[in-house]
Amino acid sequence: MDTLDVELGTRRYPIHIGAGLLQRPDLLDAVRTRPLRLITDQHVAAHYLAGVQGSLSLDSQHVLVLPPGETSKTLASVEQIMDWLLASRLPRDGLLIALGGGVIGDLVGFCAAIYQRGIDFVQLPTTLLAQVDSSVGGKTGVNHPRGKNMIGAFHQPRLVLADTATLVTLPVRERLAGIAEIIKYGMLGDAGFFAWLEQKLEALLALDDAALRYAVRRSCEMKAAIVAQDERESLAGGAGPRALLNLGHTFAHAIETFTHYNEWLHGEAVAVGLCMAADLSARLGWLSTPDAQRCRQLIERSGLPVQVPAGMRADDFRALMSLDKKVASGKLRLILMRRLGEAVVSGDFDPAALDATLRHYTA
Amino acid sequence: MDTLDVELGTRRYPIHIGAGLLQRPDLLDAVRTRPLRLITDQHVAAHYLAGVQGSLSLDSQHVLVLPPGETSKTLASVEQIMDWLLASRLPRDGLLIALGGGVIGDLVGFCAAIYQRGIDFVQLPTTLLAQVDSSVGGKTGVNHPRGKNMIGAFHQPRLVLADTATLVTLPVRERLAGIAEIIKYGMLGDAGFFAWLEQKLEALLALDDAALRYAVRRSCEMKAAIVAQDERESLAGGAGPRALLNLGHTFAHAIETFTHYNEWLHGEAVAVGLCMAADLSARLGWLSTPDAQRCRQLIERSGLPVQVPAGMRADDFRALMSLDKKVASGKLRLILMRRLGEAVVSGDFDPAALDATLRHYTA
Repeated sequence: MDTLDVELGTRRYPIHIGAGLLQRPDLLDAVRTRPLRLITDQHVAAHYLAGVQGSLSLDSQHVLVLPPGETSKTLASVEQIMDWLLASRLPRDGLLIALGGGVIGDLVGFCAAIYQRGIDFVQLPTTLLAQVDSSVGGKTGVNHPRGKNMIGAFHQPRLVLADTATLVTLPVRERLAGIAEIIKYGMLGDAGFFAWLEQKLEALLALDDAALRYAVRRSCEMKAAIVAQDERESLAGGAGPRALLNLGHTFAHAIETFTHYNEWLHGEAVAVGLCMAADLSARLGWLSTPDAQRCRQLIERSGLPVQVPAGMRADDFRALMSLDKKVASGKLRLILMRRLGEAVVSGDFDPAALDATLRHYTA
Repeated sequence: MDTLDVELGTRRYPIHIGAGLLQRPDLLDAVRTRPLRLITDQHVAAHYLAGVQGSLSLDSQHVLVLPPGETSKTLASVEQIMDWLLASRLPRDGLLIALGGGVIGDLVGFCAAIYQRGIDFVQLPTTLLAQVDSSVGGKTGVNHPRGKNMIGAFHQPRLVLADTATLVTLPVRERLAGIAEIIKYGMLGDAGFFAWLEQKLEALLALDDAALRYAVRRSCEMKAAIVAQDERESLAGGAGPRALLNLGHTFAHAIETFTHYNEWLHGEAVAVGLCMAADLSARLGWLSTPDAQRCRQLIERSGLPVQVPAGMRADDFRALMSLDKKVASGKLRLILMRRLGEAVVSGDFDPAALDATLRHYTA
């Protein structure tokens, strides 16, 4: 088992990474004595609920199982969870456990943020995407028909247990969605890690234990370091270190909104968004053309999509990107690459280059 | 005009207090250049909206007027406001203005806390209760059928303008509700201020300008000092300094829940709660019996209620108080008085004394 800490002062918390951690009830000793409620979804429950419930001696009335998928990530689900928590009288010193992927983590984390003005929660991420990205850093929230994650809060977990053995039961598409975020970390902050990924891609795709643990650990380390610098994405008016984690995401959110959150997985949209960010960075003369090609090639080799959804036009991107949270006073800012392994936030790019990227990808 | 600061590091903000501040557009200069949205209610809009809207040059489509009263303080209103903010594309560097009493302040503050994971807001409190209490300290939230303020967040305003001239148009019952919280500050933290209130009660009830400004200022100062020590009511497991502000409130919340939030004003329920807290403190031998009588007498002289709602029984209090946010691991904690001007949080009191207070008040 590897352990790393997210250094956030009084909100500091550990992330444990390794195969079989959900079978290690001792790792939950610190929270076991508190009033607990666990929320998961039907898919995850089928594989892992019984084990976790048993090791925590959780009464079944203290477990809520939601339908799987992004459609649960709404204010309506928040209301349902608030009703359930209040009906079961969870006190303010109680603790919520999120067992599942990014949807469960974001939704349950947000409920923990607003239940009685904030209670503690623990993340047990069971998807690769959640293990390397969404369960670390305290971004919680739900979607709105007008945009993804438009309602939410920053609320840090007390503990994250990333059991890499759960990835065996994960559908291949979802595994790949996690690979996209791992590639993102290489592109935005560590050219050496990117080169390692080019070498080890097949091992990673085959769920080789050592490769998987290193990839998850290195991704979490990079995210934790960035989050520790800029917990609420508030530095430099939202254009500080934390914004770098959104490499590819402005394009990706437009794709997800265009497809109503129900066709593309987040990581699949990110994969295309990463290609578009690399393409735009190369058109600006920042990233070398060969390195932009390496980015696209690694994503394509993984089996991830590298083209936008059928029928999506440049104007669709322009309209949907204008609602992005990174728009400041009407000006669109994007995360771009100065070079491989170095991302920057920029509102100061040639709009003709963005037009060229949008036209190229929607041709 | 008096100004005091709530000392919260990077979240430090000023409170300006005085008559006619809503006619001072210069006080809003710091926020005027940002994308703004204003939310108020129909009662307040009739008196003050035109002036504020004019001085901020606010387009009418950037103003939302809600029905007045506690029934607006729900998740349904939050959803309505999120829809409106997103439809009008308020960016993340935008700012919400809450013009109204405690309901508007709590609701709008909560929406600011969760819109795009948190944006800035400004409080323009127009009731005495909001000026001395709810607009200071960052507690925001909405009610749930199972309890008051059960859903919410800590989110500090950027600025508070308390225009004491708005109290002239406030119904007498609402003015008195604010007086109850002012008396609370004397009881919990400053016996000298309590004695001043005994002297100046008539001037205060007649809205004498100097008396009013001093009472609002002294209340805000005491609250600001406590909030600066314990911003999130997290010290000592929720039993730290900030909990002292809840003197009388556990009884009061039970009364409000029993009457479904629509018969009693919050301050009226607090008035009875303060009498009950003083009564229990005297039964425990902590507060002297004469001082407990002074508390009840001052409340009664103000014209505030000193008796629980008709038909409310001791068992109703017990059931409703058990859901209080101050319950820790099944143990009820109350804010009680060691002596006049000194409140303490205690879970360590003789339950027979609480029973005696409940029986006495429900007899």
